This record gives sequence, C-alpha cells and structure tokens, in this order.
Amino acid sequence: MNRDQIFESILAKKSYLCIGLDTDLKKIPAHLLAEPDPIFAFNKAIIEATHDLCVAYKPNMAFYEAQGVRGWQALEKTIAFLNALETPVFTIADAKRGDIGNTSALYAEAFFENLNFDAVTVAPYMGADSVVPFLGFPEKWVILLGLTSNSGAQDFQLPNAFYRTVIEKAQNWANPDALMFVIGATRPAFFREIRALAPEYFFLVPGVGAQGGDLQSISAHGMNAHCGLIVNSSREILYASDGLDFAQKAREKALVLQQQMALILKEKFSI
Amino acid sequence: MNRDQIFESILAKKSYLCIGLDTDLKKIPAHLLAEPDPIFAFNKAIIEATHDLCVAYKPNMAFYEAQGVRGWQALEKTIAFLNALETPVFTIADAKRGDIGNTSALYAEAFFENLNFDAVTVAPYMGADSVVPFLGFPEKWVILLGLTSNSGAQDFQLPNAFYRTVIEKAQNWANPDALMFVIGATRPAFFREIRALAPEYFFLVPGVGAQGGDLQSISAHGMNAHCGLIVNSSREILYASDGLDFAQKAREKALVLQQQMALILKEKFSI
Repeated sequence: MNRDQIFESILAKKSYLCIGLDTDLKKIPAHLLAEPDPIFAFNKAIIEATHDLCVAYKPNMAFYEAQGVRGWQALEKTIAFLNALETPVFTIADAKRGDIGNTSALYAEAFFENLNFDAVTVAPYMGADSVVPFLGFPEKWVILLGLTSNSGAQDFQLPNAFYRTVIEKAQNWANPDALMFVIGATRPAFFREIRALAPEYFFLVPGVGAQGGDLQSISAHGMNAHCGLIVNSSREILYASDGLDFAQKAREKALVLQQQMALILKEKFSI
Repeated sequence: MNRDQIFESILAKKSYLCIGLDTDLKKIPAHLLAEPDPIFAFNKAIIEATHDLCVAYKPNMAFYEAQGVRGWQALEKTIAFLNALETPVFTIADAKRGDIGNTSALYAEAFFENLNFDAVTVAPYMGADSVVPFLGFPEKWVILLGLTSNSGAQDFQLPNAFYRTVIEKAQNWANPDALMFVIGATRPAFFREIRALAPEYFFLVPGVGAQGGDLQSISAHGMNAHCGLIVNSSREILYASDGLDFAQKAREKALVLQQQMALILKEKFSI
C-alpha cells in the first residue's frame, strides 16, 4: 500500500484509526476458549465487526510469540484474513525489531515476504544497517520508534531531545514513501515540533485510549496535508466486553473514535 | 543459571565461547534438507559436536521467524535439546526485544517461561519499563544492547558516547546477577573504558570470526575477576563445511577458539 492509497483510504473511510490486535488469551471472552483457535476466532470477529471503521490493523508480535507455535499459526491466519478483505487495509507487524544487517534482512523476509505485512515497527538503537534492510520492498514500510508513549521514554529519548536526533538522521535513510515514525499519543505537547521536524512523514500514534492520549490535541498539532496520522487503539476496543457481544461492543468503541476522526477530517479536508 | 555457575562452567570447560545458532536453510548442508526438520537436525548435530567446547548457545530469533511455524517448532526442539544436556549450558534468545511494559512482560513469558531460555537480548531505546519486566525471574538474565558490533553503532551509540549513558543508567535497574551488556568484538579499543564503567557485569561479545573481532585484545581489556566475557561466534563455526563433515568441521573451528581461550584463562586464573 503506497502513501496515496493510505490517504485515499483515510478519506474514503473518514478514519485514521488503527486497531491493535493485542490478543491475550487471558482477556478474550471465555466462550471463545472452546474454539480450535481462540486467538484467530477473536481476531476474525473483531476484524469483521470493525474493518469499515479503521484503515489499519496492528498485531503486536509479543502476544503471538507468548503462545508459541499456536500463536504463530494464529498470526498467519490473521494476516491472511486481513489481506483477503475486499477493501484493502494497511497491516502493521508491531515487532520493534532491529539487528545487524544480515539479521534484519531475515526479519524483513519474515514480515514482508512470508507473512505479507505492509509495515513493520523497527527500533533505532543499532543504526542504519539495522534499518536499511527493511527498506526497498515496493510499497512496504518501516515504522521507526521516534518518541514512544511509555514512561521509559524519559530515560533515553527525552534527555537532550535524543528522539530528535533519531528522527532527523532516519530521514537520510528513507523518504516519506517508505518510512513512518512512532510518536506516542501520551505526549501531545511534542506533536507540533515533531511535525515541523518531519513534515511529510506519517506518524503511527499509539497510546490513545487505555494509555490516555488525547485525539483532539494530537490531530490539531500532528496532521499534515495528507493526514499524516494513523492513530492506534488496542485494549479499549478489543476488551470493551468479555461477553457474547464482544465484537459488537468493540465496534461501538471503534465507532466513537471513527466519528471523532470524521469530524476532524471534515474540518481539515472539507470532506 | 546464576553468575557463579556461569563462572564455574567457564573454568571447568576452559572456555567462554558461545556458539550462535543462526541456522539458515540456504547455508546448511544440502543433505539435511531431506530431514523432516532440517533446522533442528543441523542444530542437534552442531550441539552434539561442540557442547564440551562452549559454555553457551545463542539462537538468533530472526533465523527461526523467517521460517514461520516450522521455524518456531525447530526453535522449541532446539531449546528443549539444550536444556536436556547432561552438563548445563547457558542459553540466550537473541531477540533484541523491547516494548511498553505489559508487552515486554509477554516477551519475558515467551522466552523465560514457555521456551525456558536463561537469557534474552533486549534493546534499550524504550527505557526502564521496557526492560524491567524481563528482570525478577530467578536466575534469568537480561542482556542489554550496549555498544554493538555493526557499522550502525556509529549512528546513535557512538556520538556523544551515548552507549555510556545506556550502560550507566541500566545499572540502576539491575545488578550483575541479572543483567549483562552486549559489547561488540569489532570495537576492542572500547573494552577498557567500558569495563571500567561496569566492572562486575558480564559482557556478551559478538563479532569474533566473520565480523572480524580480535579475541586477544578483547580478553586483555575486557576480562574481570569472574571472567566477565562470553564471546560469540556464529557463521565461522556453523558453516565451516557444507559437506557431510559439517559437524566435525564446526567442532574444529570451535576447538581453535576454545584452545585460545584456555590459554588466556590459564594466564589469568592459573587454571
């Protein structure tokens, strides 16, 4: 999926919502545990109930790896199901990988070629040769950690504005057609300056919902002429109910966010 | 495995060698491809041929994830085989993970509880709450990226000696009984100052062999009173031959390194 297609999808769906498929066997409705593949059964129901309201899905690899082989099987079925949707959605492997060059190349193979995700999140600490192997796949994306939503961002990212060093340097490696940045929703005060630092790049924004980020503020300061924001919510949507109505309740939560986004998009782009 | 046990194992085996199980279907001997599980067949033969010469094994997750479900199955069989060896070896999941707290906790569950590795490599960018969930498992270890062996270390780690900031701060999170650092063998000039910065911590040292690191120099500047070094070699050992004799040739390569290490240990510890 290229940048124009992402923006077209945002305008068509009046949404820049990403739903994080952080599927946890301890939190999904108990009745699903009788299914042959409870993780996939949950994901499928969530996707069927929400895919007209969001432009992206983001399974976090940790939730699948914690289940070993059956987790990986559920992941394979989930990405295949996403890629078979009639209206394409943008798919993000939230993996936060990064290793020496020949090893990053294998992760790229795993996520882009074998699983056929559109994007993978990558950690910057190991520098250019850990990131570059993920680039150069047509219409595939690196989403590099910039300023994250968690408290630990205070340890290395915020001192001396190190996140700025990362966001500046990474722009030498890839243009806005192949690279996005993760910018946490819990830090709305930073969106204006980070948008100025990387005007054309998309930001993947986790932390709305359970982590407390504010959609209005982020959108006011973070949007660019092609929207430039994909805002993720995971737990608040997935676990809106643990009963038989979980998918319907997830849809209702997603709908609230989508309707807020529709208003913001209407004001910004007159749609 | 605790710190005393690691040091005892080093003295008993006269070795501080770690063998990186970076098992690549494109590089293993062709005759193994007829096996039901070529990756595990290769790993098992390598481990059987070398386990008296090394104190640790380090499968890099990328090589297994690139094979999807069958890769994960091979990984499970490999770690089970390692954990069943008569003489215990230290096992490292080279994963370079790191995510927000609740997600890092799931990675810890995956590697420490489900797979039963002794240690996992972790990337520092997301700070304390991305690392701390890996701590507090008895006799399990975090191995945090410090100064890596790849060229990309020049992008963020070396400018303003940022690796020092990471190594200093991380010592507030865990003592030398639960935390090690990755320090690349390709940077021997840094070993003296990093050892002074973290006198008691073990360093996992990749980059000897194919990447060009120098064992003598690293050992002279990096050892402490409990050895404090675990030196990894992967490709040079694994792919010493692609014939029927691959395991024997791997043993010969490992033996060269072990004999060099035995001399260094003899001089340092009079064993």
